[in-house]
Amino acid sequence: MATDWQQLSRDVEALLKEARRQVIAKMHQTLTVDEKTGRKDLVTNVDKGNEQFLIRAIRQLDPQAQVLGEEGFGDNVTSVKGRLWIVDPIDGTMNFVKQRDNFAMMIGIYQDGVGQLGFIYDVMNDVLYHGGPQLGGVWANQQQLGAPADLALADGLIGMSSPLVIKDVAHTQAIVHASAGMRVYGSAGIEMINIMLGKTLGYISYLKPWDFAAGQVLLNTLGVRTSTIDGQPLDMLSSNLVLVATKQAQRDILQIEEDDVSL
Amino acid sequence: MATDWQQLSRDVEALLKEARRQVIAKMHQTLTVDEKTGRKDLVTNVDKGNEQFLIRAIRQLDPQAQVLGEEGFGDNVTSVKGRLWIVDPIDGTMNFVKQRDNFAMMIGIYQDGVGQLGFIYDVMNDVLYHGGPQLGGVWANQQQLGAPADLALADGLIGMSSPLVIKDVAHTQAIVHASAGMRVYGSAGIEMINIMLGKTLGYISYLKPWDFAAGQVLLNTLGVRTSTIDGQPLDMLSSNLVLVATKQAQRDILQIEEDDVSL
Repeated sequence: MATDWQQLSRDVEALLKEARRQVIAKMHQTLTVDEKTGRKDLVTNVDKGNEQFLIRAIRQLDPQAQVLGEEGFGDNVTSVKGRLWIVDPIDGTMNFVKQRDNFAMMIGIYQDGVGQLGFIYDVMNDVLYHGGPQLGGVWANQQQLGAPADLALADGLIGMSSPLVIKDVAHTQAIVHASAGMRVYGSAGIEMINIMLGKTLGYISYLKPWDFAAGQVLLNTLGVRTSTIDGQPLDMLSSNLVLVATKQAQRDILQIEEDDVSL
Repeated sequence: MATDWQQLSRDVEALLKEARRQVIAKMHQTLTVDEKTGRKDLVTNVDKGNEQFLIRAIRQLDPQAQVLGEEGFGDNVTSVKGRLWIVDPIDGTMNFVKQRDNFAMMIGIYQDGVGQLGFIYDVMNDVLYHGGPQLGGVWANQQQLGAPADLALADGLIGMSSPLVIKDVAHTQAIVHASAGMRVYGSAGIEMINIMLGKTLGYISYLKPWDFAAGQVLLNTLGVRTSTIDGQPLDMLSSNLVLVATKQAQRDILQIEEDDVSL
């Protein structure tokens, strides 16, 4: 039976709104915070509880699909064949823990490796960005978004992950130098939102599939490019050094990579 | 005659609300953008027009005072004796130009070099942070703020100016490493607000008096320290490498400076 994407989108929107209510309620209680790979890579009881809640609901909505979740409550996914849901229950966990702000919930839905629907929920501002090729656009709550201006690197701000810039991985310092300036917001989801709104023209960070799955669907729908820092397609099942950028800025950045520029 | 600080505060609040109305109206028209010291140091017609508007009103409110303004429409101030108003009409001009968001208006009022009242207006969120020792507290619009938690450096996020970190000025990379992470928001006013709200525990940047005058008054009232990166008092009439931090984080950072740590 053909998928009713409109209905599926409405179902996911409702699911995320319920998840938001639960997260906000738990957020003001004492959090249980654990380290994953180190003291700057955190997970809380809310990340885990929310992933379990979301995946349980997704299995009801779409029993045949595979689900890949950040905290490991989904499937052990080894192929992108068929339908794949990719879930980040709390993106920007450090912001969640330290700021109680500037974090997101994200869901991307892919079919045979191709993005269909994306959802990024700016929880504290209560704005749910959703859409994709199956809906023919991207909306911020009920308001459809226009495509951001196709800015050249010199004409806009670029979002960065701070370790990359401090270590000058992949000429990131030259890229920042060539841009109008760098911003660091600490959440891939919030960075993706800023690009959709034209507040930054791109973002460079090491990311896992759950960090970029939803944003890739939404941004590609708005004409923004997603690739590895070398311009290759993103691998949906592993870590990537991700470059998100307007068409012009992507060209400028790939040229810096090719020229192997150092400051 | 003794100054009625309560009344003066109300007058400045009303003035800033009128300035906000004018800035928002002009913001959606085409901006005239000029470079000051380089392509990353901008000024617009709105910065200039708003400073002229504010300074004209300040001269009516307080005819005997000196006024120091970022764009040069105030006095040529060479002494902090008497009453001194320090005005930043648009703080975070790059954000204003590129994002139409994440910028602030700021006014600090000093008496013989001592902070009395501070005002930081988060224009797009329409929240005016105001207060100081003359009012015995700090308010976000009508809501009084509590003091932020006195976090150690390891326990919180720190705001940074990106050139400092990229060039590793004053051991900023070691400071970031010792913290829970770095954020870059691109406006001293927005950084000061985040510290007041406990979202970051400090901020390090080269700043001019108009960048820190208002924030110093508000943050000191909330128990947060402002100094040079060496722990000395800020010079109110020149550039400073400014360290804003909770008491504990200030101690941790001054220790890193003293130890001359490199990563």
